Amino acid sequence: ARLLLTPELSICGYPPRDLLLNPAFIKAMEQALTTLSTQLPPDLAVLVGTAEANDAALTQGEKSLFNSMVWIAEGKIQRRFRKRLLPTYDVFDEDRYFASGRNSEVMSLDGINIGITVCEDLWNEDSFWGRRSYNTNPIADLAAQQVDFVVNLSASPFCLGKQAVREAMLQHMARRYAVPILYVNQVGGNDDLIFDGRSLAVNRQGDLIGRGQEFTTDVLWVEFDPQKRDAVSAQVAPALSPMAELWNALVLGVKDYTRKCGFRQAVLGLSGGIDSALVAAIAAAALGPEQVLGILMPSPFSSEHSVTDALALAQNLGIQTQQIPISPLMTAYETALEPLFAGTESGVAEENIQARIRGNLLMAIANKFHRLLISTGNKSELAVGYCTLYGDMSGGLAAIADVPKTRVYELCQWLNSPDSAPWLQQIALKAQDPSAEVIPDHILTKPPSAELKPGQVDQDSLPPYDVLDDILERYIDLHQSSSEIIANGHDAATVKRVLTLVKRSEFKRQQAAPGLKITDRAFGTGWRMPIAAQWETEMPLPPATTES
Amino acid sequence: ARLLLTPELSICGYPPRDLLLNPAFIKAMEQALTTLSTQLPPDLAVLVGTAEANDAALTQGEKSLFNSMVWIAEGKIQRRFRKRLLPTYDVFDEDRYFASGRNSEVMSLDGINIGITVCEDLWNEDSFWGRRSYNTNPIADLAAQQVDFVVNLSASPFCLGKQAVREAMLQHMARRYAVPILYVNQVGGNDDLIFDGRSLAVNRQGDLIGRGQEFTTDVLWVEFDPQKRDAVSAQVAPALSPMAELWNALVLGVKDYTRKCGFRQAVLGLSGGIDSALVAAIAAAALGPEQVLGILMPSPFSSEHSVTDALALAQNLGIQTQQIPISPLMTAYETALEPLFAGTESGVAEENIQARIRGNLLMAIANKFHRLLISTGNKSELAVGYCTLYGDMSGGLAAIADVPKTRVYELCQWLNSPDSAPWLQQIALKAQDPSAEVIPDHILTKPPSAELKPGQVDQDSLPPYDVLDDILERYIDLHQSSSEIIANGHDAATVKRVLTLVKRSEFKRQQAAPGLKITDRAFGTGWRMPIAAQWETEMPLPPATTES
Repeated sequence: ARLLLTPELSICGYPPRDLLLNPAFIKAMEQALTTLSTQLPPDLAVLVGTAEANDAALTQGEKSLFNSMVWIAEGKIQRRFRKRLLPTYDVFDEDRYFASGRNSEVMSLDGINIGITVCEDLWNEDSFWGRRSYNTNPIADLAAQQVDFVVNLSASPFCLGKQAVREAMLQHMARRYAVPILYVNQVGGNDDLIFDGRSLAVNRQGDLIGRGQEFTTDVLWVEFDPQKRDAVSAQVAPALSPMAELWNALVLGVKDYTRKCGFRQAVLGLSGGIDSALVAAIAAAALGPEQVLGILMPSPFSSEHSVTDALALAQNLGIQTQQIPISPLMTAYETALEPLFAGTESGVAEENIQARIRGNLLMAIANKFHRLLISTGNKSELAVGYCTLYGDMSGGLAAIADVPKTRVYELCQWLNSPDSAPWLQQIALKAQDPSAEVIPDHILTKPPSAELKPGQVDQDSLPPYDVLDDILERYIDLHQSSSEIIANGHDAATVKRVLTLVKRSEFKRQQAAPGLKITDRAFGTGWRMPIAAQWETEMPLPPATTES
Repeated sequence: ARLLLTPELSICGYPPRDLLLNPAFIKAMEQALTTLSTQLPPDLAVLVGTAEANDAALTQGEKSLFNSMVWIAEGKIQRRFRKRLLPTYDVFDEDRYFASGRNSEVMSLDGINIGITVCEDLWNEDSFWGRRSYNTNPIADLAAQQVDFVVNLSASPFCLGKQAVREAMLQHMARRYAVPILYVNQVGGNDDLIFDGRSLAVNRQGDLIGRGQEFTTDVLWVEFDPQKRDAVSAQVAPALSPMAELWNALVLGVKDYTRKCGFRQAVLGLSGGIDSALVAAIAAAALGPEQVLGILMPSPFSSEHSVTDALALAQNLGIQTQQIPISPLMTAYETALEPLFAGTESGVAEENIQARIRGNLLMAIANKFHRLLISTGNKSELAVGYCTLYGDMSGGLAAIADVPKTRVYELCQWLNSPDSAPWLQQIALKAQDPSAEVIPDHILTKPPSAELKPGQVDQDSLPPYDVLDDILERYIDLHQSSSEIIANGHDAATVKRVLTLVKRSEFKRQQAAPGLKITDRAFGTGWRMPIAAQWETEMPLPPATTES
C-alpha cells in the first residue's frame, strides 16, 4: 500500500476521556508518534490519530488540544490535520478537550489530492439530514478544493441501525460532491462503547465498493486509479442481519471489557430466567464456555424450575455451575434484624436482602477466584428500577443493560434458530447441530419473575413488557413527554406511573455498572440526569425511596 | 426594590442537565415565566433565568437552546439576554445544550444602563487570569457600551478557596472597567454540587460593599445612586473561616439532598472510626440529631473501642444507635461458601464479605424505615480503592467523598474547638458548652483501621495519609505525572503504587454514590475516566481486581 489509514485517536484509542487532561499523556503520545515514524517503512504514507497541543490556546482563548491526524512518511511527521466538528451530545464530550481545526486541508500524495476529515466532520451534510448541526461543512469546503478523494478517520460507536445511516450518508455525499470517500472506523469495546469497525469505500458515483468486516479487526485494501481519479476496487464483506449484528456487538463488548480489565474468566448468577440465560450465552461465546461459571442461588421462594432451567441452560452452553442455597443466610439476616424489624410487615426491604445476599456471594466468588462478575439486568428493568442496587445490579459490566426486555426475547429466539449457528461455534451443542435449542424453551415461555416472594411475577408490578418498552422508547429515545405518549395511545395512569418510576430510579442507575450501549440512547455516559429533581414524577414528596 | 435579580436558570434550578433535552421541560419553563409575569408587581423589574429555544438552531447548525435571563416587568416578558461563554470543563457541559449568545446586551431601566452577564461570561478577564479561556470578553464589550453597572447572574458551585477568587476577580474588573458589579449566586445543594450563595456588590472603585450570607438563602439590598452612577450601600455579611465554610457546605449538601429526595431521616454505619464520626456529626447538624440513626456492627475483628468510641460519639451528638453483631452472618457466609472456598487462604474476599454484610444490613434498615443511607468514605480511600464496593460504599449520598483524610482530621479537631460552637447549636452538648468535645478524643488519636482482620491498620496497606494526600492532590488536582510527583520529593515506588491503585479503583468510583464536591476536582461528574485503560499503572495485565 502507498497510504495506510487508521482511525481517529488511534495512537491511544477512543475515547481517552479525562486522560487527555494529563499533559504527560499528551507528551507520551507525541513520543509514540516519533518512535513510530522511525519504525514505519519510509515509502508508506500513514495517517495516525492523536491529540495535539494547541499552542495558541492561552492567547486565543481556546481548548488546549486538537483532535488531529498526523501524516507520517519518510521517517518523520510530515504534517497535521485537525478535526473541525466536535460532537458534544450523547456520549461525546469533545468540546471539553479540543479546539476546532480552522480549515479543511488537503494532503497531496503522488499528485493525488486527498481531503482529510475526522469522524464528525462528515456528519453535517444538510442535504442529507435536512438540518445543520454545525455552521461549517468540511466536505463542501474540500470539494471546493478539487480533491481526488476524501478520507474520513472515525471512532464511531455502534448502535442498532447506525451502519445503514453511515452507508446511505457516505453514498449520498460521494454522489453529491462527485468524490470517492474512504471511511475508516475503530473496532473493539471500550467500557460502555462498542466500536464496530466495518470500514467503507464509496466510489465517485456513490456505489459502495468496499466494506470491512464487522466487530473484528480487518484490513480493507482499496485500489485507487489515478487516471480515472476514482476508487476502483476493494473487498465487500457481507452485511450481518440485525440480530447477528446485535449479538456480535454484545459478545465483542464483553470480550474486550473482560480482557482489557485483566480478566480471563467470568462469573454470573443463574436464576433460571431469560436475562441471565442470555448473558450466560454471551459470556460463553465471548470468553469460551469453560471460562464461565454460573452460580445458582435458590431461596424458599424459588420455583422448582428456576434450578432445572438454569442447569439445562448450563448444560446447553457447556459452562460450569455451582449451587448455593441462600435460605440459611436469609434466616441469619432475619435473626440479626429481628430486634429492629419486629412488628413490621415483610416487604421490599426483605426482598432486597435476598438479592443482596446473592450479590455478596457472587462478589465473594469474583474476588476469590479473580473472575469478572457480569450483571444480568436488562434495560426495561433498569429504567423503572425493577432491580436491587448492590444486589442483582452488582458486577463489573452490565452486559444487556441497554437491551429492552422485548429484544431480550427476540435475541434468545434467534439463538435457538439455525441463523445464529455461525456465531455460536464455541458452543459444542450448536456447532454439532445448527438448529439446536440453546436457551431451554421453558425459559422463553414461563412468565418472567424476580421470585423474591411467593407467586411473584413481573407483571404484578409492571405493565406488559411490549407496552412498557414502547413507553420507555418514546420517553428515553424520542424525548416525548407524558402527554405526547398518552396522545400516542397509551393509558394515562400507566404512562405517569412508568415515568415516575424512571425518575425515581435515577439514583440506582447512577450507581450501576457500565452497560454496553446498543441503542441510540443508553443509560450511562450519554444519560445525564439529576437525581434530586421532580420533573415527570406523578407524586411530589415523599416518598422517593432507596427501595427495591 | 426597582430591580430584582435571580440566579442563572433560576426557574428550574442549576444544573438541569439532560432534562433540557426534553422539549416539554422547556415548554413548562416558558409557561412558568408567563404565569410569573402576571403575578409579579408590575413596577418591579425582574431578571429570571431560563432555557430559551433557539429558533435558528437547525438552519445555523447550532444547539437548540440558549441559557437566558428574561426581563419581566409590567405583566409581561420585556426582553431576553443570552449567556455567551459556555463552560465545558470539570462538572460543566453547557455546550451539550446551549448555543452562545452573539452579543453582550444592555438593559435600560429609568435611564440607567445595565450590562447583563450570566455566570461564566465574567470569568474570562485576561488581565486577571493571565490567559484567555474564550475568544470574547463580555465585560469589555459592555464597558465599551458605557453601562452604568453590570449584573452577573450565576450558579457557581462551591469549592474551597473559590469565594476569595470571586471577590478578587470582581473587584479587579470593577476597577479596570470603572463599573459597579452586582453578582448573584444560587444557594443550595443539587446532587453532588453545593451552591454557596453569598451574592456580592462591588462599587465603581472596586470596593466590596455588599455580601450576602453563605450557604443559606438571603436577600441582599443594594442602593444605586443615579447621580453618582454607583452602587452606594448594601449589607456585608462576615466571611466564614475556611473550616466553618467547609462545615456549612457539607451540612447544606446533606440537608438539601436528603430533603429534595423526599427523606427526613438518615441512617449510617458507626465504626468507631473518624470518618463515620464526622459524617454522623454532619447528619446530626443537617437533619437534627433525633433524625439520625447510627448502626454499630461489630465483628470478631472489631476492637473493644470500636463500640465504646461509637457509643460515646452518639451520646455526644444525641443521635440514636442500634447494635447488630455480624459474627453469625459471617459464619453463615463461611458455611455457604465452604464448598467453593475450601483450601483457599482467607484474604480480601473474606474482608469484603464483612463490609458487604454491613452494607446489606444498612440498606435493609434504610429500605424498611425510609431513611437515607449516608455513606462515610473519604476522598483518600476512594482514590486508592481502600473501600468495598457494595459494602461501606453503599448509600444514597457520600457526604465526605471529596474530603481528603488529613482534612477529615482537621475538621474533627475544629468541631472539638469552641470555634465550631455557633454552627453546632443543634447539638445540645455544644449548645451548653462551646468548648465541649464532640468527637471523642480516642477517635482522633487511635491509628485508623478498617478492622477487617486481626490487628489491621490502614498504614499496613497505604503510605501515611499526609504523604498519600499530597501525592493524590498533585495527581488529581494539579494533573502532575508520576515523574513530576517523584521530582517533587516523593518516593518513586510509593508514587507508582499510589497511581496504580488510583487507576485500578476506577471501576469502584464509577459505581459510587454521588459525593459532595468541595475541592477543585472531585470524583464524580467532573472526573471522567475510562476504566479499561492502562495509563499510569505500574504493572500492566493481570491482575486488575474487583477486590477490596
